[in-house]
Amino acid sequence: MSAPKALADYAALAEPLLKAFLDEKGAQLPAALQGPHGLLRNYVLRGGKRLRGALVLLGCEAAGGTRELAVKASLGCELLHAYLLVHDDFMDRDELRRGGPTLHVSLGREHGAHLGGSIALLLGSLTQSWAHELLLATEAAPERVLQAARIFEEAIAEVTAGQMLDLLASRREPTSAEVLEIEQHKTGGYTFELPLLLGASLAGGSSSLASALRGYARPLGQAFQIADDLLGTFGAPEVTGKPNASDLREGKRTLLITRALELATPEDARTLRDALGREEMTDADADRLRELLRRTGAADAATADAERLCTQALLALESSAIPRSVRTSLAEIATHSIRRVS
Amino acid sequence: MSAPKALADYAALAEPLLKAFLDEKGAQLPAALQGPHGLLRNYVLRGGKRLRGALVLLGCEAAGGTRELAVKASLGCELLHAYLLVHDDFMDRDELRRGGPTLHVSLGREHGAHLGGSIALLLGSLTQSWAHELLLATEAAPERVLQAARIFEEAIAEVTAGQMLDLLASRREPTSAEVLEIEQHKTGGYTFELPLLLGASLAGGSSSLASALRGYARPLGQAFQIADDLLGTFGAPEVTGKPNASDLREGKRTLLITRALELATPEDARTLRDALGREEMTDADADRLRELLRRTGAADAATADAERLCTQALLALESSAIPRSVRTSLAEIATHSIRRVS
Repeated sequence: MSAPKALADYAALAEPLLKAFLDEKGAQLPAALQGPHGLLRNYVLRGGKRLRGALVLLGCEAAGGTRELAVKASLGCELLHAYLLVHDDFMDRDELRRGGPTLHVSLGREHGAHLGGSIALLLGSLTQSWAHELLLATEAAPERVLQAARIFEEAIAEVTAGQMLDLLASRREPTSAEVLEIEQHKTGGYTFELPLLLGASLAGGSSSLASALRGYARPLGQAFQIADDLLGTFGAPEVTGKPNASDLREGKRTLLITRALELATPEDARTLRDALGREEMTDADADRLRELLRRTGAADAATADAERLCTQALLALESSAIPRSVRTSLAEIATHSIRRVS
Repeated sequence: MSAPKALADYAALAEPLLKAFLDEKGAQLPAALQGPHGLLRNYVLRGGKRLRGALVLLGCEAAGGTRELAVKASLGCELLHAYLLVHDDFMDRDELRRGGPTLHVSLGREHGAHLGGSIALLLGSLTQSWAHELLLATEAAPERVLQAARIFEEAIAEVTAGQMLDLLASRREPTSAEVLEIEQHKTGGYTFELPLLLGASLAGGSSSLASALRGYARPLGQAFQIADDLLGTFGAPEVTGKPNASDLREGKRTLLITRALELATPEDARTLRDALGREEMTDADADRLRELLRRTGAADAATADAERLCTQALLALESSAIPRSVRTSLAEIATHSIRRVS
C-alpha cells in the first residue's frame, strides 16, 4: 500500500533538510567523533516513515499557518523520534532497526558492549539536543516558540515516564487497560498528539483547535501502537526492518499478549506465560507462539481494538472545525497507520 | 574551609525549592514509578555544592537582574547537573556518589543490572526534561527566555559531545593539551560558563558582559576540573562522597595522569601505563600509584596548573565591568573551587 500523499510529500521535503542539518553538525564535531556521527547519520537517514514531521506541518496548517513556519519544528520531531529509538534499542537490546544494526550493536563491536552502549546513548542524547535546537530556531513570535517548547518538553517527560512504566511492566502482568494506558504515554503521546499540537501552537492555534486535534490524536495513538505491536510480532523483518521475535523474547506486555491471556484456555495461557521472556527462545518456539496468538483470537481482537480506536479518531475528525484539506490528510494517515499489518 | 557566602546563601534558598519541585513531580507520577522517583529525589537532595545554581543568580545580578528572575533557571541548572551525573555514573560504572549508592547500583540490585541501569538512565532523562521545564517557566520577556533556552541547549550538546570524547580518549593516550580541551567541553562549559551566561541572558545582559563572564568562566572551568580530578584521586571518600580509586581503575586520562606520563622516568611511566585501567586494581595498588603521582611531581604540576588558570580567571574578573558585589562573590567562588584539595 502506498503512503498517503501528505507523508510522501513531507518525506520528499524533509530528507534533504535532515541530511544537510546532520552534515552541518558533523562538520562541527572533532575528528574523534566523526566515526560515531557517521553511524548516527546513517541511522537517522536510512528509514522512517517521517510521520511525526508530517503531522507537525498538518497541525500548523490546521491553525492557518504556512508549512515553512513549522519545518524546523518538524525536523525536531523527527530527531526526537530518532533519539527515543536509539535509547529504546539499547534498553530493549534490539539488534536491528530500519534494516540495519542498531547503534549500540555497531559501536559495541568496535568498543565492547559497555563503552559501545555508552557512546550510542550519548549519540541519542546529542540528537535530542539537536531536536531542541531546531525547535528553538523557529522563526515565529517568541511567545509562540516558547509555548511550543513547553509542549515539546511535556511530551518528552511523558514518553520518558511511559518507557519506565513499560520496562517495569514486563516484570509483572498488566491488564489490557493498563497496557493501553502505558502505550498512550510511551508512544501515542509523542507520535500524534505532540506533533499536531506543536504545529498548531506555532501558528497560534486556539485551545478549541487543540482539543479537536487531541480528539483525533489520542485514540489514534493507541491504535497505532497496537498495530505497531502486531507488526512487531507478525511482520516480516525484511519488510519492517526490525526483528519479529524480540517482543516475545523480551516478554513485552503488549495488548496482543494481554488479550491472549484474557482469551486463552488455561493450558494456552500457561504455555504463553512460560514461553514469554525466554532469551533462549528459538524461531520455531516463536512460530508456535504466533500460532497460539492467532488461535486464541488475540490477533483478531487486537486488530479489532485498533480498528475501533481508529474509527473513534475519524469520527472526532469529522465533527471538528479543522479545515477540510487537513482533515482529508489526517483521515488518510489514520487509515494508513493501522492498515500496515492487516 | 567553609563555603563562600554566595554558595551558602544559594543552597539555603534552593534546597526547599528543589524539594518542593521534586515532590510535586512525584505526586504526578503513577504508583509504579514512586519507588524509582524516591531514589532520584534522594540522589538530588542528598548533596551537591549547588555551585551551578548559585552562578545563575550571580550572572543575572551581573546584568542588573533580580535574584527572583533567575531562580527557576538556577534550579534547572542543578537538575541538568543531576541528569549528567546519573548518566555519567552509569557510563563510568561508578558505585558511589554524594555518599550513597548511584541510581543504577540501587536499581540494579532490585531489577538486575540491565533493567536497573535502564531505569536509572530514564530517571536521568526525566530530570533533564524537568530542567528544561523549569527554565522555560521563567517569568521574563519571551525573547529572553528563548535566548536562555538556546544557550542551555548549546551547552547540553557541548557536554554530551565532551563526554563522548572523554570516553573514547580512555582508549588512547591524549596529551595534556587535549585533556584540557576535553575537560573544557565536558565539565568546564556547563559548570561555569553556562550558568553565568544563562543568568545574564535572562536579565538582557549585553554581549560585552557575556565576554567578560566567559573570560572568568573558561579558565576557571578548567581549573575546577583539574582540582576535581585531584580530589577524585587523592580525596578521602568519606569527605568527597565518591570513590577515590575509580578514575585509576577506569584508566581515566585526567591532566594528573598526562602530566605524570610527561614527567615520569621511563620506568615509572611504564608502571603507570601498565596499572591504569586494570579493573582488578587493589587498594594497595592504588596507593602505590598515588605515591608515583606525587613522586613524579605530577600532583604538584596539576595543582600549579589549576592555580595558574584560577589566577587567569581572577585577573579577567578584575579588569571587567562586572558590578563589584558580584565580582567579590565570583572571586571567592574561584578560590574556593580549586582549594578543595590542597
